[in-house]
Amino acid sequence: MPNLTALVTLLAVLLYAFLGLQVVRARARSGIKAPAMVGDPAFERTVRVQANTLEWMPIFLPALWLAAIYVNDSTAAAIGVVWIAGRAIYARDYAEAADKRERGFTVQGLAAAALWVVALVGILKALLQAM
Amino acid sequence: MPNLTALVTLLAVLLYAFLGLQVVRARARSGIKAPAMVGDPAFERTVRVQANTLEWMPIFLPALWLAAIYVNDSTAAAIGVVWIAGRAIYARDYAEAADKRERGFTVQGLAAAALWVVALVGILKALLQAM
Amino acid sequence: MPNLTALVTLLAVLLYAFLGLQVVRARARSGIKAPAMVGDPAFERTVRVQANTLEWMPIFLPALWLAAIYVNDSTAAAIGVVWIAGRAIYARDYAEAADKRERGFTVQGLAAAALWVVALVGILKALLQAM
Repeated sequence: MPNLTALVTLLAVLLYAFLGLQVVRARARSGIKAPAMVGDPAFERTVRVQANTLEWMPIFLPALWLAAIYVNDSTAAAIGVVWIAGRAIYARDYAEAADKRERGFTVQGLAAAALWVVALVGILKALLQAM
Repeated sequence: MPNLTALVTLLAVLLYAFLGLQVVRARARSGIKAPAMVGDPAFERTVRVQANTLEWMPIFLPALWLAAIYVNDSTAAAIGVVWIAGRAIYARDYAEAADKRERGFTVQGLAAAALWVVALVGILKALLQAM
Repeated sequence: MPNLTALVTLLAVLLYAFLGLQVVRARARSGIKAPAMVGDPAFERTVRVQANTLEWMPIFLPALWLAAIYVNDSTAAAIGVVWIAGRAIYARDYAEAADKRERGFTVQGLAAAALWVVALVGILKALLQAM
């Protein structure tokens, strides 16, 4: 089993769950009552940090695991750590101001793209070998 | 293969798909036309039930499967059933009123946290044994 | 390993990532600044295309992979291609007008339901054989 990738998966899930908790806190601070999702800029930024991370989970997790299975565990896990770091930077910067969000976003986007490419190379190799 | 966990996964997906269908129905009932997502409290609560369940899928599914693979199938599946039950309670209560949503939310949150911890213990054991 | 299903997964992720890029472009075109998600009908439709595809990823991906593992790779991958095609049609039509979105939606919904049923049959067989 790709043990390091499994551990990185749990860490990514932990960061993501923490970002959800930040939404709960920002809602309480802003006084915006559920089910409303708008009405305060700081609350809306916290919502977008969590929502954007959610949006990238179905890119990150499949690419991470296909890279781990078709290429190797430590390569996938190492790029996965970069993705988590990019997401953490994005969360911190976006909470301060919307126009600071690009740096962390770029880091995590490049990490996800790298995982996708690594996975593709591994899958194409496996398909060729099975011919 | 972890057969019970596979079955629980399909049941979780079925509940989640049903919550999406409720959004379609609530949209028709409220007369809110797509792409609008706001404008009627009952519709917005139904949207939030589905959206919050979506938000937890990338926590629940990875933790469930890592627990199944690294620890065992029946433990993961049993906690998975608790998660589904918590989600069903949350959906029913939140549809009635936003401030009733905490009970079911707590049940599913504890179940997801339990799966995460079980998975972590299993992965750390596997990493230690591989040293 | 189910190589074809792995490849179809990467293609689905690619389409989904492209739909996210369309949101970035539609935001720039509409002049709506983050974190706002509403204020322009064309932007909101592009957001909903991406969001609805996100909403279906936790239905599609688990059903796809359980069908691939419990039944077979090429069946799962073939239905997966239909899902991707339905999603592409949905994205194109919804971008034009909200009331055109049903055709592609139906195609992808039937494909996802088919994967779910195929997976269920496979899992029930495996459970009966293990008795």
